[in-house]
Amino acid sequence: MNPFNVTQKLIDHHLIEGEAIPGREIGIRIDQALLQDATGTLVQLELEAMGLKKAKTEIAVQYVDHNLLQTDHKNADDHLFLYTAAQRFGLWYSRPGNGVSHPVHMERFGIPGKTLVGSDSHSCAAGSLGMLAIGTGGLDVASVIVGEPFYVKMPQIMGVKLTGNLPEWVSAKDIILEMLRRYGVKGGVGKIIEYYGDGLKNLSAMDRHVIANMGAELGATSTVFPSDHETYRFLKAQGRPEDWVEIISDKDCKYDLNEEIVLDGLEPLIALPSSPGNVVPVREVAGRPVGQVVIGSSANPGLRDFWIAGHIVKNRSVNNGVSFDINPTSRQLILNMIKNHSFANLIKAGARFHQSGCMGCIGMGQAPSSNTISLRTMPRNFPSRSGTEDDQVYLCSPETAAASALTGKITDPRDLGKLFDIPYPTYSSPEKEIINSDLLVAPLEDGSEVQLKKGPNIKELPHFLPMADQYDIPVLLKMGDNISTDEILKAGADVLPFRSNIPEISKYTYSVIDTTFYEMAIKSRPIYGGHVVIAGENYAQGSSREHAALAPKYLGQVCVIAKSYARIAWQNLINFGILPLEFIHEEDYDKIEQGNVLSFENLGAGIKSRTSIPIRVTDASGQSFAFEAVHTMSDRQMEVLLKGGVISDFQEKLKRRTD
Amino acid sequence: MNPFNVTQKLIDHHLIEGEAIPGREIGIRIDQALLQDATGTLVQLELEAMGLKKAKTEIAVQYVDHNLLQTDHKNADDHLFLYTAAQRFGLWYSRPGNGVSHPVHMERFGIPGKTLVGSDSHSCAAGSLGMLAIGTGGLDVASVIVGEPFYVKMPQIMGVKLTGNLPEWVSAKDIILEMLRRYGVKGGVGKIIEYYGDGLKNLSAMDRHVIANMGAELGATSTVFPSDHETYRFLKAQGRPEDWVEIISDKDCKYDLNEEIVLDGLEPLIALPSSPGNVVPVREVAGRPVGQVVIGSSANPGLRDFWIAGHIVKNRSVNNGVSFDINPTSRQLILNMIKNHSFANLIKAGARFHQSGCMGCIGMGQAPSSNTISLRTMPRNFPSRSGTEDDQVYLCSPETAAASALTGKITDPRDLGKLFDIPYPTYSSPEKEIINSDLLVAPLEDGSEVQLKKGPNIKELPHFLPMADQYDIPVLLKMGDNISTDEILKAGADVLPFRSNIPEISKYTYSVIDTTFYEMAIKSRPIYGGHVVIAGENYAQGSSREHAALAPKYLGQVCVIAKSYARIAWQNLINFGILPLEFIHEEDYDKIEQGNVLSFENLGAGIKSRTSIPIRVTDASGQSFAFEAVHTMSDRQMEVLLKGGVISDFQEKLKRRTD
Repeated sequence: MNPFNVTQKLIDHHLIEGEAIPGREIGIRIDQALLQDATGTLVQLELEAMGLKKAKTEIAVQYVDHNLLQTDHKNADDHLFLYTAAQRFGLWYSRPGNGVSHPVHMERFGIPGKTLVGSDSHSCAAGSLGMLAIGTGGLDVASVIVGEPFYVKMPQIMGVKLTGNLPEWVSAKDIILEMLRRYGVKGGVGKIIEYYGDGLKNLSAMDRHVIANMGAELGATSTVFPSDHETYRFLKAQGRPEDWVEIISDKDCKYDLNEEIVLDGLEPLIALPSSPGNVVPVREVAGRPVGQVVIGSSANPGLRDFWIAGHIVKNRSVNNGVSFDINPTSRQLILNMIKNHSFANLIKAGARFHQSGCMGCIGMGQAPSSNTISLRTMPRNFPSRSGTEDDQVYLCSPETAAASALTGKITDPRDLGKLFDIPYPTYSSPEKEIINSDLLVAPLEDGSEVQLKKGPNIKELPHFLPMADQYDIPVLLKMGDNISTDEILKAGADVLPFRSNIPEISKYTYSVIDTTFYEMAIKSRPIYGGHVVIAGENYAQGSSREHAALAPKYLGQVCVIAKSYARIAWQNLINFGILPLEFIHEEDYDKIEQGNVLSFENLGAGIKSRTSIPIRVTDASGQSFAFEAVHTMSDRQMEVLLKGGVISDFQEKLKRRTD
Repeated sequence: MNPFNVTQKLIDHHLIEGEAIPGREIGIRIDQALLQDATGTLVQLELEAMGLKKAKTEIAVQYVDHNLLQTDHKNADDHLFLYTAAQRFGLWYSRPGNGVSHPVHMERFGIPGKTLVGSDSHSCAAGSLGMLAIGTGGLDVASVIVGEPFYVKMPQIMGVKLTGNLPEWVSAKDIILEMLRRYGVKGGVGKIIEYYGDGLKNLSAMDRHVIANMGAELGATSTVFPSDHETYRFLKAQGRPEDWVEIISDKDCKYDLNEEIVLDGLEPLIALPSSPGNVVPVREVAGRPVGQVVIGSSANPGLRDFWIAGHIVKNRSVNNGVSFDINPTSRQLILNMIKNHSFANLIKAGARFHQSGCMGCIGMGQAPSSNTISLRTMPRNFPSRSGTEDDQVYLCSPETAAASALTGKITDPRDLGKLFDIPYPTYSSPEKEIINSDLLVAPLEDGSEVQLKKGPNIKELPHFLPMADQYDIPVLLKMGDNISTDEILKAGADVLPFRSNIPEISKYTYSVIDTTFYEMAIKSRPIYGGHVVIAGENYAQGSSREHAALAPKYLGQVCVIAKSYARIAWQNLINFGILPLEFIHEEDYDKIEQGNVLSFENLGAGIKSRTSIPIRVTDASGQSFAFEAVHTMSDRQMEVLLKGGVISDFQEKLKRRTD
């Protein structure tokens, strides 16, 4: 048998269908499922539609961390719905305010060697514990919970060798920012990134979480770390040493791609507005005035991250011009922060301390003032994601963030010694953390009697028709490269509460790009029977929200033609019955204009033939030309698509299901 | 000289104009001014319009505690505006998240013997320290800051004698709820309530704050406590013993009205939806299921209040059906809570801990789910104020709230011994509290160079024309008794961010009562040149928001005819040039219908004559009848009204001002 790397071991252990050859679709057995509330209400409606009796995964957890502001009844109604649904379908329920899904899952449920899918793009964070963890659309997670395999194109495995030690004031965030500096936001597409090497020995499990979490920003399918002594130390501190198992790569194992980072050579890095891929050294932008600093989120959730921020501001006061917002990971973290004094250090210095949840990372509160720099330890800074339209969000480490909070300007934390006489401190993590799982409600043995409580904002899922064979549909939008799901269907306090109300949320479709889109789509649907949109590279990067497919579908979207796709978005399009085509010749992208009408003939046969699909383009003057596009769907996916998406497919399967 | 009570001493010391005879307008010198952000943006615009160089009060503080959610740029832009305005005009600035205005003011700035006005109805809370503190509209506060006296009709003084000691599990909140049980929400109108008697000796300054704060719910002009040993103990714990001065009533002093409460006879009380006046014993409603419990707000801001809640839930876990929300008073309070372990006790038990501010009390977050009971230690439960339209908000003590959080049902805290074996604990307040004023920014010596930063949502104040002599205007709305400002112009996350944008906020005018009001007003304005509304008793009770006058004025409101008015609202109407008339005969109220047209002739002369004003009412069929109404404005107020309100009056004064 060949020597395996960690990823290969994890896949080998869970492979049910297909061969683990890059580019081929494989089906893998999933042990754990993670849901958050903003995507979870839809998943629970899907589970209901599928008639699930009890979750088939070993562990499935419904977290509530996104919609916590409760500015009216909608959020709180959703919480009640999710609670009753979790009880009905045999899921754990992490109550509102308990904490951010990814770190809480890692602390309470993560087990080395297991597989996980989550209806959140940062679900890959669990890779920090030696798991194979993949973020995906809600329908995929629903499938897994009812016992189906998870299907994905086998990615390439990129081995990233870490050597040496991080310099003072440089931390895990700077490692993932270095990866983003080298590869950008689509450098990880179609890849699983596996970290190895002696540089790992000084990276705690929570440091690895920082790196694994933001693998999503690279576009990677997953990020994998070995399960080693640091993993053991973490599980022991969490009171679960028995869950540890060693998983390390075999000697002489191979990777499809290779990369190396010498940790000693790193310096503090920062991502400029408005992409996690715009990375430069902090030095280059030092001195720019800062109006807000936010510490926390799933991208820097560890006790150490808050501790170092607390150490920096201890017995000092944040700059008068800076709102210093703390976004604590979980109630458990807060208890540990009280114990190690970082909580008091931060509050004393002027911190605004918020409830545990995703907060401003998803635009749920703490939006910065107009045209003001906000420094955040969060994972994403897509345009207006913060809630402020002309936002200027920078992403950095807790060290850089805290240093800048003191000075009111972007500050390289290596200058802290010079500026404030702050020596670099040594962190020693507690042998045993305070554990708190009081807000985790266990699943019932038999939940069949539990009634689902649906508030007035929770609407039925829409039904969609199968794909037709012939279309003449207008191009309603032509977009550039790296369009994020935040631009397709924005997050934030106006929109997130409608995640379980498709008719309402669809009004925001593409509104960040073109505020007239909804009107255009509504007008063109009865005339043309649908529409198409055109995009450049890496279409729909970012979050896993299936609403970025479901809402366009609801408005009549038949097809997207892009240069390339982000993985989750591509799966979501298929799941909701939207045809994701790719240009064969880049110049065809240049030739098509917004307002052109695209004609498709014999579409079903064309899709099944796997050859290119001919499309005729007609402009307003009646001039026309033809071009061809391709798809890369598996047989299984083609079948789903032609039926109108996974919901229809499920309903058919449900009829056949006996249990 | 006659023996004086405390109120008489305070007024005597500050009287500038008039005689302190109940019903007569007096002008008093004001030492301190308090602004909060939701009303403060308008005040700062007013100060700018008045060309203020530097605040004339001894201390003026701009707090930011209402609009903290920051779901987009508007809140954060307002914060920047308020910061620059405070610096420009010589005010202290309490930064966002520092804490709730009233308790922070009491801790850091309150001085026995001083007078205070605040642009928040709960400003009366400062009466707990032996101050004369009055909540009022923003224009009144702006007047005071530029050096004018504060004008108010001299109230009657009601002496409330407290005797004996509170039983176990009964606390200050139950005393003010008992007053509300006896007098209802208009029982305090036209009165200052002064507490005295040996029952005071066991009520700390912060307990008195609880009682003084909710004097606003009685409709009282102010609430006054003596400055005694407890006041000294408080100031000493706050590091300000030198600010103490004894102020107690003279032997044999008299009150206009007398009341007595035997503390030993009290039991836990609770206000039912949706009025603070619907008070019953907790026993009567015990057992009803509870979905949310909120501890905190300006009505229960003290360290003891959080400590007793922490004591009750210590080493226990809140009921799975209850969202347990903690609304901490201030960052200083949090530091003291960490020290006395109540913070950890609450978090451990399942608390969702929020940033310091007004939060759900003003509908800024943590709205309960639909048709679910929410138990709150807050001061108000007017309909839909929480943010949820069909809300079921109950008001109670921290003891009752915490007990109910454990059981998931409304629970009399006296049952805690029986239910959980929790003995009644003895609280000993710290000799010295941790002080934190890091987020209080001191005024500049000379702020004349500071540029005001106005975000795109901060609009100029509208200008209004003088009152005309003749109107034929429709009755757009006929309302019942006790209409609150929350119904006239609701609070909450949708609306509060528009407090400095009158055109936008006016769209919500009376929307809680009639969602078509805005459309009606916009349509009728060009046809009739304005409108009138009819109301019952105690019109516009509740908050001090002048938007409840300014927005109707903006939509063309010329006149309100009511059976009676809440004090602040009545002043605000005049300040913004709306004529507040009162029915002479109650039956006239019954005869007028919505849609009738009211005709006024020679209005200016009628107002000045101080005799009754004749009004002709015409219905749709052309039938008409006449009736008469009166006003109770002072000469000064008549002048302001006829000019179109205080803004026009100020602008005239400004022309005359030399400095």
